[in-house]
Amino acid sequence: MSTNNRNDNHTAKQKRYSSTRKSGTTQNAKGSLTAKKNTASGISTRKNYKRKTYSKPQKPSVKIAFLGGLNEIGKNITLIECENDIIIIDCGMAFPDGDMLGVDLVIPDFSYIEQNYERIKGIILTHGHEDHIGGLPFLLSKVNIPIYGTPLTIGLVENKLKEHSLLNKCRLNVVNSGDTVKLGCMSARFIHVNHSIPDAVAFAIDTPAGTIVHTGDFKIDCTPITGDMIDLSSFARVGDNGVLALLAESTNAERPGYTPTERNVSDSLDALFNQAENYRIIIATFASNVNRVQQIINCAEKYKRKVAFSGRSMVNYMDVAGRLGYLNVPANIIIDIDMLDKYPPEQVVLVTTGSQGEPMSALSRMAYSDHRKVMVGEGDFIIISANPIPGNEKTVGNVVDELLKKGCKVIYESMYDVHVSGHACREELKIIHKLVRPKYFIPVHGEQKHLRKHAELAEYLGMERKNIFIGDVGSVVEINDRYMKELAPVQAGKVFVDGLGVGDVGSIVLRDRKHLGQDGLIIIVASLDVYDGHVISGPDIVSRGFVYVRESEGLLDEVRKLSLSILEEFAENSVHEWGIIKNRIKDEVAKLISQRTRRAPMILPILQEV
Amino acid sequence: MSTNNRNDNHTAKQKRYSSTRKSGTTQNAKGSLTAKKNTASGISTRKNYKRKTYSKPQKPSVKIAFLGGLNEIGKNITLIECENDIIIIDCGMAFPDGDMLGVDLVIPDFSYIEQNYERIKGIILTHGHEDHIGGLPFLLSKVNIPIYGTPLTIGLVENKLKEHSLLNKCRLNVVNSGDTVKLGCMSARFIHVNHSIPDAVAFAIDTPAGTIVHTGDFKIDCTPITGDMIDLSSFARVGDNGVLALLAESTNAERPGYTPTERNVSDSLDALFNQAENYRIIIATFASNVNRVQQIINCAEKYKRKVAFSGRSMVNYMDVAGRLGYLNVPANIIIDIDMLDKYPPEQVVLVTTGSQGEPMSALSRMAYSDHRKVMVGEGDFIIISANPIPGNEKTVGNVVDELLKKGCKVIYESMYDVHVSGHACREELKIIHKLVRPKYFIPVHGEQKHLRKHAELAEYLGMERKNIFIGDVGSVVEINDRYMKELAPVQAGKVFVDGLGVGDVGSIVLRDRKHLGQDGLIIIVASLDVYDGHVISGPDIVSRGFVYVRESEGLLDEVRKLSLSILEEFAENSVHEWGIIKNRIKDEVAKLISQRTRRAPMILPILQEV
Repeated sequence: MSTNNRNDNHTAKQKRYSSTRKSGTTQNAKGSLTAKKNTASGISTRKNYKRKTYSKPQKPSVKIAFLGGLNEIGKNITLIECENDIIIIDCGMAFPDGDMLGVDLVIPDFSYIEQNYERIKGIILTHGHEDHIGGLPFLLSKVNIPIYGTPLTIGLVENKLKEHSLLNKCRLNVVNSGDTVKLGCMSARFIHVNHSIPDAVAFAIDTPAGTIVHTGDFKIDCTPITGDMIDLSSFARVGDNGVLALLAESTNAERPGYTPTERNVSDSLDALFNQAENYRIIIATFASNVNRVQQIINCAEKYKRKVAFSGRSMVNYMDVAGRLGYLNVPANIIIDIDMLDKYPPEQVVLVTTGSQGEPMSALSRMAYSDHRKVMVGEGDFIIISANPIPGNEKTVGNVVDELLKKGCKVIYESMYDVHVSGHACREELKIIHKLVRPKYFIPVHGEQKHLRKHAELAEYLGMERKNIFIGDVGSVVEINDRYMKELAPVQAGKVFVDGLGVGDVGSIVLRDRKHLGQDGLIIIVASLDVYDGHVISGPDIVSRGFVYVRESEGLLDEVRKLSLSILEEFAENSVHEWGIIKNRIKDEVAKLISQRTRRAPMILPILQEV
Repeated sequence: MSTNNRNDNHTAKQKRYSSTRKSGTTQNAKGSLTAKKNTASGISTRKNYKRKTYSKPQKPSVKIAFLGGLNEIGKNITLIECENDIIIIDCGMAFPDGDMLGVDLVIPDFSYIEQNYERIKGIILTHGHEDHIGGLPFLLSKVNIPIYGTPLTIGLVENKLKEHSLLNKCRLNVVNSGDTVKLGCMSARFIHVNHSIPDAVAFAIDTPAGTIVHTGDFKIDCTPITGDMIDLSSFARVGDNGVLALLAESTNAERPGYTPTERNVSDSLDALFNQAENYRIIIATFASNVNRVQQIINCAEKYKRKVAFSGRSMVNYMDVAGRLGYLNVPANIIIDIDMLDKYPPEQVVLVTTGSQGEPMSALSRMAYSDHRKVMVGEGDFIIISANPIPGNEKTVGNVVDELLKKGCKVIYESMYDVHVSGHACREELKIIHKLVRPKYFIPVHGEQKHLRKHAELAEYLGMERKNIFIGDVGSVVEINDRYMKELAPVQAGKVFVDGLGVGDVGSIVLRDRKHLGQDGLIIIVASLDVYDGHVISGPDIVSRGFVYVRESEGLLDEVRKLSLSILEEFAENSVHEWGIIKNRIKDEVAKLISQRTRRAPMILPILQEV
């Protein structure tokens, strides 16, 4: 049973929860089963007796379903179900992997939510990053669920819904950290945390089954740039009252020690501004990192420089953050990017997107001389105030190389401390574990390696392995104070967004794209006589992405002759089943091409009857 | 003029070089020009007078041409030209970037070598890594140039040429480090260095213009696993005699301090073997890292385990290294991979390729349950003894995640010291610079950021900026003891190898592949009446990689109707110019598709006359 630190306030909690109970029948049935088990174990029974729990009604279970965020970075979405009610925590998107060709973004499969629509009491949001709110427009275009978030988070959601023309019909609710929202039989307390975007929160969700704590993304920053330090007191209080399960983010679970305070960046930026006295300064960072931009503005003010923004998302974020009071901007310091050339280079700072080397971002366009308004060169001092997200190292490196070739000074190394992470490292995770002292632990937000490392950390802190659950997208666990068990998974997965299409690109389309992208294609077109099957026109050979045609006319002519001979052979033998004919052409042409080139282009025979 | 440390032995050198001079005429002409310049500068003349150089013949220039290895990782190849002779240093390949779809490997453009074939005296090889010898088969299939390398390097080249059926007609020469090879008017001394493959050398090339030092890839390892420490004495001696130019590798020019000794890995491996007592051990590392494999064999011997190899390149390298005596293998320790299951798991070590997460490698196949002979699971202790090369972080991470999901123990973090670099860090580079004390410096082997950092290091050590040259692929510099100047570039670049094709995939094919891969294609086929242009059959619409067809029949039907109406409109107006008709179809269909889907598939109208 509950091994550590969960002895206080037990009865008090029971009372509170029992008042909100709804579907007691099944739960009592389960409860009596477990009571019998307890009787079999002398020690447990004695303990129960001492605490007089024999007279208490058994608590119900809570189910936690993961529609995203496990074994992946991004697309965070978790469902807490108790009795007949469901709360959704976050609704994120993910960026496509390299093998998801042509896909713009990836969102969760919302089938389970649609099926259980009437049970859902609300979506609560931890913070305004895309991997936590980016899926909302796609969900809200199907179902209308009330949203709850802190002021900045809701401001960013508003912007997003406006773009999708969904704002008017959605129900957005601003909640301040420290407040509690009642959602059916559950209630969620918003607990302030530090992160790389202001106004981030964790949740302590009181359910009839017990309290679930979900950290969201967080770090412990005792000296944040704006706002307070993470509300550790609340975590402690929640922990003191007993926590059934902790769900904590695992992004930095591999990293020892502490994540440095955001304030460290100030000193580095100051030194670099000083060093860049005679240069124009260009700083690339995450558009959502409002505090980072605040520090840049502070430096700009000190060194008497104007600040301009470049990149659509940078402009958007600054607009929302400024409007809601999350940016402290001195008068007349911000200028439009069109005014940049009106000032001497050493009197401006350009803050831009593109810190991840994204091909269409402002910084990449500058590097490849493709930016409409900014030309960079020897007079530029460029600071990349971000670390490459795994997978982006190469593109970031390429942008740095291009900027260096243009003669720019580029600051990109970690040695300059121009970036700190927004996620808790191992020592910070330990603090949260020790304050919350949950009965069960589920690592969330991370790939398998992060989840494993985080699970190992919990074990190291004394939790039994059986009380830790490492899940996957679609996993469901049932938890109560007697056991945690995995249930059958629910429908979940990746839905691809490509242009306006949501979900119409699947594995077959992606497989074809990969094949076409790797090897190109050869099209064989012929018109056949509707009566005898003889070739009337063609076969014509068209290839794309296969080989430089002018230098390979001989090979393509061989393909034409081979196809013709196959078609005529079938016509002679009066075989008119096109499936058979096409397959034969595919096979034989593939064999020929492979012999000649060791390549395997897609081969598409197209026949028309005339 | 020569600012530092080049005062000794000046006259002696002049004498030596003058005896090997051939084409004195032009050089003398140039020389007298410069002599006049010197006269104009009082100080220089006095100096010359003091040293009695007024009576010496002017030295010729040396030209250095780079056909690869600058602003890129891999494809290293450098030409040293003096008088009428040329030496080639290395002939490497590179792996394709992510945007070179379907390309297997990248080799240098050899046009300049083919044009100057008769002047080339030989190819000297620094070591046996693919980025230094991988281009050889493609060059040697065009021109027959003698090759010089150390025993292991030549052994690996032999293997490679055998695969390309080129071995019999090639001229391979084994040279031991410490020896000198005379190549026309130049001679190359082979200087032993440490690297992540045995038998690596640097070159000190004596030319009529002065000595050129090329480090190749190197590190300073005072306690290597096999062989000696880098021959710093030779570097010192060469430096004492005066060096015109240093070409030094820049891979780790961003990294402070020293690269640890390979011997560090031994201790970590030993600890891990101890820890993995009850597991089967699988270690992934670079096939070419013979010393790493030696350490694994040593550990296996100590812990009484048999060793098997997996992966074609691993087997190949071990074969060559074993045959040439670079592996010290105890009797009966190596077993065939087919014998693996005959031993208890805790009595074997499997050494495998795949440390970079390469999709077709042995370790990836194990991770994705696709290996024909090895199934991995909870009984496996897997060590990835390598760091991800930039760009491979994501694929390596994916392999680690899959292995963890299968229940394997996986050691992949740097905290375990299971890998050390093979390249010199900044302090080691400084030592070489200070020993060699060149007049001019050219950083090689690296992207722009590495070359810049290395150039900054040389400046920091006291070299004037004007004596440092940062080049690009195709760059040529002329160097003599009076000046270094950049000449017009020569033809150089990337040649793509795809299957059997060398150079037949170019930018147009790649652009089409990218387009097809991102957006797929729509083919519109119609048969037209040869007389009036009316549609006889079709238009039929075929799409691939665009959209899941069954769910988009409506859209494709719209495309069909639109195409038909365009074709009929042209027929009515008696327009039969197919270029015009096709372009109109392309434009209108693209517009329709974009409106409906915001996508831009390739649109291919194919018309046939019947």
